[in-house]
This record gives sequence, C-alpha cells and structure tokens, in this order.
Amino acid sequence: MQSLGTFGRVIAGCALAGFAACAAQAADVTRHSLGSNNNFPIARAVEVPAGKTIYFHSGTTPAPLDPKAAPGTPEYWGDTKSQTLSVFNRIGESLKSLNLGFGDVVAMTVYLVGDPAKGGRMDFEGMMAAYTQFFGTKEQPNLPARSTVQVAGLVAPGMLVEIEVQLAK
Amino acid sequence: MQSLGTFGRVIAGCALAGFAACAAQAADVTRHSLGSNNNFPIARAVEVPAGKTIYFHSGTTPAPLDPKAAPGTPEYWGDTKSQTLSVFNRIGESLKSLNLGFGDVVAMTVYLVGDPAKGGRMDFEGMMAAYTQFFGTKEQPNLPARSTVQVAGLVAPGMLVEIEVQLAK
Amino acid sequence: MQSLGTFGRVIAGCALAGFAACAAQAADVTRHSLGSNNNFPIARAVEVPAGKTIYFHSGTTPAPLDPKAAPGTPEYWGDTKSQTLSVFNRIGESLKSLNLGFGDVVAMTVYLVGDPAKGGRMDFEGMMAAYTQFFGTKEQPNLPARSTVQVAGLVAPGMLVEIEVQLAK
Repeated sequence: MQSLGTFGRVIAGCALAGFAACAAQAADVTRHSLGSNNNFPIARAVEVPAGKTIYFHSGTTPAPLDPKAAPGTPEYWGDTKSQTLSVFNRIGESLKSLNLGFGDVVAMTVYLVGDPAKGGRMDFEGMMAAYTQFFGTKEQPNLPARSTVQVAGLVAPGMLVEIEVQLAK
Repeated sequence: MQSLGTFGRVIAGCALAGFAACAAQAADVTRHSLGSNNNFPIARAVEVPAGKTIYFHSGTTPAPLDPKAAPGTPEYWGDTKSQTLSVFNRIGESLKSLNLGFGDVVAMTVYLVGDPAKGGRMDFEGMMAAYTQFFGTKEQPNLPARSTVQVAGLVAPGMLVEIEVQLAK
Repeated sequence: MQSLGTFGRVIAGCALAGFAACAAQAADVTRHSLGSNNNFPIARAVEVPAGKTIYFHSGTTPAPLDPKAAPGTPEYWGDTKSQTLSVFNRIGESLKSLNLGFGDVVAMTVYLVGDPAKGGRMDFEGMMAAYTQFFGTKEQPNLPARSTVQVAGLVAPGMLVEIEVQLAK
C-alpha cells in the first residue's frame, strides 16, 4: 500500500472505513527537523498531505508601542523585539478567530528592516527573542518552514517587522 | 457533521451524491475580511479547502512604458502606478490563457523598489491606485491575502514593481 | 466530464477504477511555459491539482566557501555563483532525504544581496549560471515558477543568496 502514496492510502482507507468516518484518517502534517546536530527552532521542511485546508494569511505589521509618541520614531514603534511581539500577538488574535493556532502554521516569511540602533543591520536576535515565545515551546512545539530577509522598507517609516504565514489544518 | 471538517463534509457529501456529481459540492474558497472597522482592500486570510487546484505564478515585471526612451530611465519604465498597471495587465493576460481570472487570486506578494521621485521610499499609494482597478471592484470583488515590501532592487535598473500571485480554483 | 474539473475527474475516475487503484490516476502537475518566443528557463505558472502533497521548504543559505577565511569576507562566502551552487547542493541533499528531487520543485523565491563587486547590484547572471545546472537540463527539465528580488541583507554579513522552494508530489 505504501507505493500508492498518501492520496492512495487516504482514499483506500476511506473505501474500507466508509466515507463519513474518513476525515479522522486524513494524513497529518509532517515537520522535518533541520537535523540531529542543529536545534535552531525552525523546520527544514513541512509536508502538507492532500486533504488539508490551506490558509494564506496577509503580512502582519505591528501596532504602535506608544501611539502618543511622534509617528515613525523608535519610541512610537518600539524596537525589533517589541515589534515582533506585537506582530505575533496580532497574528494570534487573527488565528483564534479562524479557529486556528500557532501550531497550525506551516510556513513563515519574516521581513525585517535594518535597525539604525544596530548599525543598519536587521536585529535578527531581537526577532528571535520574540519568535521563541510562540514557536518551539513546551506548550506549542510545532515549528514552521521559514525564510528571514532584510528588506529596504515596509509600509510605514519606522516599521521594522512584517510577518506572513501560511497554515494547514 | 461539522466536526468532520471540510474534508469530511466533502467526502461524506460525495458518498451521498455519487462521485460524478461530487465536484459541484467541493467547498468554496473563503476570504476572511480585515474586520468591520477596516475596509482596506485586502483579505486578512484566504482559506483554500482540499479539492482545489493551486496555481503558483511567477513574479511578473512591467513592460517598458516607452521602449524608445533610454533604458533604465523613469521615461522608459514609467512611475510606480503605471508600472503596476502594466504588471496587472500582463498577469491578466496570463491568467486568461490559463482559464483563470483575478477573482481566483488567493495570495499576492508585491515587491516595490524605492522611487527616487518619492525620496527613495516605495510609492505605496501609486501601487494602490493601480491595484484597486483590479481588486475590490463591483465587477471583481474578491480580495487576496497580500504582503507588500520595499526591496533593494529588481532584475533591471529602473524597474519599480514585481508582483507574484498564487491562485486556487 | 471536462466540466467537472480536475477534482471531479479524479473522483469519478476513482469510482470507476476502485479506490485502491486511484492514486495512479491523480492528475499530474502542469508547468505552463512563458511562451513560444521566450525560452528563459522558468515556468510562467505551475498548476498543482488536488491530491498532491505540498512541501514548504525553509530558505536555504550557502555553506562558507573557505571556512578558514575571515568571516563575512568575499573569500569566506564566495561570489554569487558559488554561493548559489552551494545553496542548490544543500537543497538537493535535503530533498533527497525527503524522497524528493529538483523536478518536484513547483515554486521558488530567490533572494539576492547586492554584490559590491557588481557596483552593489545583485549578480543575476551569476545566480543563473548556477541555477541552470539544476533546472531546465536534459536530466531535469522541470521548471518552477520563480520570483527573484534583491534584498537589503541576509542573516550573516557577506551572504549574497537565500533560496526558498515549494514542492508538490
């Protein structure tokens, strides 16, 4: 049966089990680790079998840290870590309303803007300090495939973080 | 039945209806809005149920606005709005040949280059002035999930816009 | 039957053939070319029918070309072509361990950093010189949908190439 692939196994399983009982047999999402000698908290690849619903989520930017500060200033938006926390809190609220959670995220693109306080380089460590509160924890161990790049800018001056996710359930 | 999820409902529906009649029952793409107090014309998330064909479209760049102008100049490529119009016209032609339309777009990434005429910032408003002619209109109300970032450059000097789309049908 | 779409044809075919025999009938991935007058080696769009497993692969960066050189220097990382070769060799090893190959890649995003040796512009030709060793060859003719953008930076100074792929099987 292995040679039939996931699709064959699911459908053959459905034929044996009756179709109304079939959903419980849909294959799970598989997260492939970076390897035994690399514990960086992202998946090397995430495998989404047929039969899953896929969600494309828009890029999410942070809320102002201090809306009373002058727009565009570091006081207004906060640093990379606090902006990333804001982004994930916003994504979390959005996912909740869709009956999804961070554990359903299969892929992520992190767009960072160079931080003047870090010599114009993206603050990768600041982003990670927030990311690791939501992914790879005891409560939420699931890791997404991820790319992180430094872009030249985001929609508003001073914004340092935009994060896009795809999910499967 | 709700607890079976989309996959279970579709398959159970197929069993009742006969398989040849099943395609018409495949669940629809669901577009989740940003919220009742936010009418910005993108979807917060787009949900693609199992059973859909997914299309990955290459990034599309504009045609020269004035091919007789000196290559790389603003006269040659046009501004952000006219480049975005050119990109969407090219994407539209491509989709037509695939029996698809803008209403099938579920996700979009917009890469903009900083416009020297805008102090080196991306011309987000110029892009939107073109985008809103194709998405969120009376004729084509469907909105994609979207991310927009300013990159450092595209394949040819003077190019300000590249747009990538994913579709489902 | 055509009007039922891919999903209908697959399921109707399954009903006729018996479910255990169904996997072999799952529709193939279709790669749409850029057109008869354009032989640039990417697909205009790639169509992934229902019933496929989709893989989201993390962005991959190069291994150092000369780990004994000073970190961050061109000697340490190599130029764009050699970095791209390293990235594809790493992706190839990863895919092999997942029972996948370059022929299963359906979409690709190439993030390049401006090369100081090229006046700060991305070395698109250098990237292509490596890419064409893996895609569009006699042994591996399958082409992905692709976007290529110049970003402001990657995780380590001197890194010029990060490549993300999605696959279907």
